[in-house]
Amino acid sequence: MVLDWGCHTARPSRVLSETPTTRILGIDPGTATVGYGLLDWRGGDRIEYVAAGTIQTPRELNAACRLKIIRDDLAAIIKDYAPDLLAVEAIFFFKNAKTLVPVAQARGVILECAASLGVPFSEYTPMQIKLMLTGFGKADKKLVQHSLARLLNHREIIRPDDAADALAVAVCHTRMAQTALAGLP
Amino acid sequence: MVLDWGCHTARPSRVLSETPTTRILGIDPGTATVGYGLLDWRGGDRIEYVAAGTIQTPRELNAACRLKIIRDDLAAIIKDYAPDLLAVEAIFFFKNAKTLVPVAQARGVILECAASLGVPFSEYTPMQIKLMLTGFGKADKKLVQHSLARLLNHREIIRPDDAADALAVAVCHTRMAQTALAGLP
Repeated sequence: MVLDWGCHTARPSRVLSETPTTRILGIDPGTATVGYGLLDWRGGDRIEYVAAGTIQTPRELNAACRLKIIRDDLAAIIKDYAPDLLAVEAIFFFKNAKTLVPVAQARGVILECAASLGVPFSEYTPMQIKLMLTGFGKADKKLVQHSLARLLNHREIIRPDDAADALAVAVCHTRMAQTALAGLP
Repeated sequence: MVLDWGCHTARPSRVLSETPTTRILGIDPGTATVGYGLLDWRGGDRIEYVAAGTIQTPRELNAACRLKIIRDDLAAIIKDYAPDLLAVEAIFFFKNAKTLVPVAQARGVILECAASLGVPFSEYTPMQIKLMLTGFGKADKKLVQHSLARLLNHREIIRPDDAADALAVAVCHTRMAQTALAGLP
């Protein structure tokens, strides 16, 4: 990282060899349950688990009220943990047409909330997430869960599934960013 | 309308024949353009046009920033016009799979914004909207536009299309509510 001390010379006055920490908030959207997972990334494979959990919305409430709970809780998480970036799965495929609309509605609220609080976002396809975690784009859920636990130094697989899925997107971001950096001249 | 003056007798002390005004905000969701239309309903066919227009979001911004503009502008409209209810089209069919995800994302932000500002919502299918405006559930766009203009005492059809679609959902609510009231004992 190049530190600029305000005196604009052609050459930076000081160069840090240490990579700064990036705090990444991974999100797995849904109407009933939104998974979230936070990790600190210090470059390379230096990933530290911070927190993970779920936002739950009561089934008896209408869609608008459930979306309000999601936004309120997500805003509280962003304020508590101050992430530098939000990572979320892209929706490309119509694997489950019935849940596509509610998931997309929740995703819209999540993206808007991040923008309102000044947190940029990155999105990754399910295949990118599997590839970056296991080296195999068609890996099954079990393999992804075990790779994730190993990467985050957890003895057992992370539960619940929604929190693990959210952490997986966050880990995917660290690997995609490395791949992008590796391509620099 | 029955007014209750606080002394609880078996018979209401006063009965108003006049129906109170309900201000309805119709919304036609989208990422690039959100149509909105406001009308005052005084019962039966007594509908008065209040305002209509569109929220536009720049194509060069990412999804999160565009959704933020939609929420900010919608919140301003709700604060300016103080609607009693938001009416929006339900998404049931996959007519255009490509635009389904962005439309659902925008719809999520719209529903959440309404809930946050305490405005309840009603949703209607495209077939209900066509049926309530023209008497024919498979009416074409032109027939819906002309019926809408006639109902709102406009000489010409309302433009742009997104604003007209938003007003059509709002009108649909007035007719669905009448149908529901007519079914009361």
